[in-house]
Amino acid sequence: MRLPRLDAAGRAALFTEARTANTFTDEPVTDETLRSVWELAQWPPTAANTQPLRVTYVRTGEGKDRLLPLLAEGNRPKSEAAPAVALLAADLDFHEHVPVTFPIKPGFRESLEEQGRDGRAGMARFNGSLQAGYFLLAARAHGLATGPMAGFDADAVTREFFPGGRHTVLLVVNLGHPAGDAWQQRLPRLDSAEVLSFA
Amino acid sequence: MRLPRLDAAGRAALFTEARTANTFTDEPVTDETLRSVWELAQWPPTAANTQPLRVTYVRTGEGKDRLLPLLAEGNRPKSEAAPAVALLAADLDFHEHVPVTFPIKPGFRESLEEQGRDGRAGMARFNGSLQAGYFLLAARAHGLATGPMAGFDADAVTREFFPGGRHTVLLVVNLGHPAGDAWQQRLPRLDSAEVLSFA
Repeated sequence: MRLPRLDAAGRAALFTEARTANTFTDEPVTDETLRSVWELAQWPPTAANTQPLRVTYVRTGEGKDRLLPLLAEGNRPKSEAAPAVALLAADLDFHEHVPVTFPIKPGFRESLEEQGRDGRAGMARFNGSLQAGYFLLAARAHGLATGPMAGFDADAVTREFFPGGRHTVLLVVNLGHPAGDAWQQRLPRLDSAEVLSFA
Repeated sequence: MRLPRLDAAGRAALFTEARTANTFTDEPVTDETLRSVWELAQWPPTAANTQPLRVTYVRTGEGKDRLLPLLAEGNRPKSEAAPAVALLAADLDFHEHVPVTFPIKPGFRESLEEQGRDGRAGMARFNGSLQAGYFLLAARAHGLATGPMAGFDADAVTREFFPGGRHTVLLVVNLGHPAGDAWQQRLPRLDSAEVLSFA
């Protein structure tokens, strides 16, 4: 069976020409677009279809007021300018859904239940991080510039936006349309000899 | 500035129609294609451009003989049939490269050095997992079917293929062209109300 390949325009939009944006125009991003990003991002695989990623889109003034003080100071102007900011979190209680999402493994929910949140954290974080990668490319697929940021108080953002103890925030992602000065010079990638080997 | 969007064919190839393959034809995948997958996967972002992912492609009989016993028994026939199997690992000593990959932050290498491998493991795993997500979609962009698997002895695969203690294997991915019976019934995705919220 022959599978389709991604054409040059698609490769440029998602991989080779897309860049991390640091500034944004005030053109809004609709909730419909934000929902559509997720509709696309949900499809690539997770282990045993566990799908632990959760997304909160911050796009109101009130939401920004709650978020901005919890970001590293240098990141605040970026998120203030972005019409939407996605908070990507892993749900440590993802196992509640496995009777529906992975019905082919009897007892799976119970064995995950026994592990507790600490025991499930590795699986939640790994698969949630995979999904964060899918999410960034799905946003680019919608013509959005993405600005992922690791500089924030993860415990504080978790407490403020995902209270209750079952989530852990992984990444904060600015979303919008790039301003004229959105891009910095592209940083180098590793030589492939540093990355690849063959066995 | 208006960014390009991904067209319907591209969305189908990477997200909506692509599926995890469980069986493969014997059509080979060339080393040139495997290198090209990485050339594409290297571009999406990592925190401070740290790029911790490393890839070993197993595609010889000798390599398969080393790998197969370290996989969960149910996964062995899949990797045996796959013309190539990618081992995706995080390099805990990624900081050695930051003077080249992130020259704009003086002292970054030294502060990461002080953290030791345990201190760097979270950053290596998170960013390596993001890159694993990019890698899967980059393989699909090349018309390859992907079969990511979490069922393997991670410590044993790390020791066998990434000896020395600076790596940790994150994911094993079968790659190839799908056989006629490659696909199982698609498992359900969560209702978006379980995933999305707005603030």
